[in-house]
Amino acid sequence: MKTIYLDNSATTKVDPEVMDVMDYYHGQTYGNASSIHHEGKNAKKALGEARSIIANSLGANDDEIIFTSGGTEANNLAIKGMMYANEDKGRHLITTKIEHDCVLNSGKALEAEGFDVTYLDVDSEGFVSPEALEKNLREDTVLVSIIHANNEIGTIQDIQRLSNICKQHDVLFHTDACQSYTKTPITTEMADLITINAHKLHGPKGVGALYVKQGTAIKPLLDGGGHERKRRSGTENVPGIVGFAKAVELGMDEAHVNKMQALRDYLIDEILKIPHTRLNGPRGEQRLCNNANISFRFIEGESIIMNLDTQGICTSTGSACSSQTLEPSHVLMAIEDDPERAHGSVRFTISRYTTKEELDRTLTALKATVDKLRRISPLTEG
Amino acid sequence: MKTIYLDNSATTKVDPEVMDVMDYYHGQTYGNASSIHHEGKNAKKALGEARSIIANSLGANDDEIIFTSGGTEANNLAIKGMMYANEDKGRHLITTKIEHDCVLNSGKALEAEGFDVTYLDVDSEGFVSPEALEKNLREDTVLVSIIHANNEIGTIQDIQRLSNICKQHDVLFHTDACQSYTKTPITTEMADLITINAHKLHGPKGVGALYVKQGTAIKPLLDGGGHERKRRSGTENVPGIVGFAKAVELGMDEAHVNKMQALRDYLIDEILKIPHTRLNGPRGEQRLCNNANISFRFIEGESIIMNLDTQGICTSTGSACSSQTLEPSHVLMAIEDDPERAHGSVRFTISRYTTKEELDRTLTALKATVDKLRRISPLTEG
Repeated sequence: MKTIYLDNSATTKVDPEVMDVMDYYHGQTYGNASSIHHEGKNAKKALGEARSIIANSLGANDDEIIFTSGGTEANNLAIKGMMYANEDKGRHLITTKIEHDCVLNSGKALEAEGFDVTYLDVDSEGFVSPEALEKNLREDTVLVSIIHANNEIGTIQDIQRLSNICKQHDVLFHTDACQSYTKTPITTEMADLITINAHKLHGPKGVGALYVKQGTAIKPLLDGGGHERKRRSGTENVPGIVGFAKAVELGMDEAHVNKMQALRDYLIDEILKIPHTRLNGPRGEQRLCNNANISFRFIEGESIIMNLDTQGICTSTGSACSSQTLEPSHVLMAIEDDPERAHGSVRFTISRYTTKEELDRTLTALKATVDKLRRISPLTEG
Repeated sequence: MKTIYLDNSATTKVDPEVMDVMDYYHGQTYGNASSIHHEGKNAKKALGEARSIIANSLGANDDEIIFTSGGTEANNLAIKGMMYANEDKGRHLITTKIEHDCVLNSGKALEAEGFDVTYLDVDSEGFVSPEALEKNLREDTVLVSIIHANNEIGTIQDIQRLSNICKQHDVLFHTDACQSYTKTPITTEMADLITINAHKLHGPKGVGALYVKQGTAIKPLLDGGGHERKRRSGTENVPGIVGFAKAVELGMDEAHVNKMQALRDYLIDEILKIPHTRLNGPRGEQRLCNNANISFRFIEGESIIMNLDTQGICTSTGSACSSQTLEPSHVLMAIEDDPERAHGSVRFTISRYTTKEELDRTLTALKATVDKLRRISPLTEG
């Protein structure tokens, strides 16, 4: 049975072209980019080219890009690195209730150290209110961190507007763009710090980057040999970084986005024909092009997922990182305090490789699964 | 001109078998190890098997292994994670003057935060004195961190003896075993925390691990989804970790060590026939099997390296991480306060792939290079 993989917000298949360049830098030009011999110089050159590709994709300068081991490290560095570096200004951080765990738990770690963190509410579609943001800014607010496109329900914030409010108040603005990068425009105009990573866009796991606007001081989390202009030490993962850049080159194509958007809308429309279903998050341009998140009444999302999985179809209830817990999704609980809706949700996230035929097979399986589960559900309406 | 790569302590070529397993987990079984569908479970299974291989290689339990993005992160986590977690006991750290930059600079970062750090001296071969260690232990000493095999001069410490002293005084002991791992025995009997990484042993860059003895509290540096039993968050780099385990399986072979030892001794003996040369570090079993570090009087190590490089031979002056600076090596300055000796050093680090024929070509080139450079050196004796 061929797998239908609809969990591309958890992670993606690495593109064969990406694997090829990585293999080259694993086995052929494998020098340490800090070494002064020709193998080192060749690695350094490849690193520089990859850095330029990633910087250009954001409209950044090369030296504004700090490579990290992924989105989690980049978000930790952005938040802790900025808060630690600016303690003379204040100890207040603003973020939202629908961030990825690595932002929320960086916030909690800072609270344990005596920092003050405000977690903004969102509306029923997952949007942060610009007015609420402005109202919560304080004299001692150092940083605002708001996720660009939510990883569970696909809501794309009006980052430019939120960022402008921060700029007016001289507060730094960070956005976690791991889900949106290459899928909806994100540029350095929109934030002082931007987190991106590779494995959500057919690049390798273990590689990410943080854009930090020139002149913005940051305290490193990893000290050592002074790599990445002393902001992140550790032997540069040249194969991974070169693979990341190749994935960006391959991914930055409006045709991919248009294709995914059309398939997404088809999938959403068809699923919503099933009775007692609700879309989580907005529709249209303000929704991530590859995300459909639907709540099914009377049944558990997890039961649907397990049933689809036996038919070779990979989906999820929400973030992979929290999928081992029994807690309802904090994102769904933030848009509506309804545990049934939260527990009954399934996230379908497509990729540029997804085909309509795969979605049709998924829809057939899904309809039968929902029907079966509702027949045995004690919650189903008489 | 075929490259002769003698900079294997900086980084190594990835073994083709390692690349094969990585490609499989990049392109075939590429799920997120935290996902609950079959692709996630397959990734989780591979992760578990890799963890067991690495744990077994140290005599550790699986849950004592924390995967990281490399040696730098593992050393930062070991040192900062332990110091932060034990502030109620004290704020004193002991390390040495010949550590890798990531240990030294973690120490400096802690000093800036008000911690107290003692940097132990070493003798003329780079050994830490057990007596000096014991004398420097204090009531408020939380952790001692001593590099197992030095990355520049190859000195292998008597880690068991140093560790026993710490145990007697109820002080935690960490060792950075990035250079020694698979090359000389290192087990959990020898330390409470052990840093290892993949790219020094024909595995991928961007992957390392920290062994933490059961029951030892550690403060995470990266907060998030709670991966690695809440000690290191971030989507698991399954391809990298599986590649790491494969590299360990391939590398753990006494025959490799014996071969490297014989080639190392041949190389050292032949180089020392050149007049005015000195070996840095000890000889025999207490020297890393792949390291030859020689000081050449009257000339700069960097000039030798650049000249050899034009002949396709990759060597280094010391640590790749510090190779862009003009400072003399802190390790060589620690064994003898002689800038000429430090500036005149060249490190040759072989691998299991190195051949005698490559060393012979290197020796011929080296003799001619040294001869040429000395003829034009203003320092050469009349």
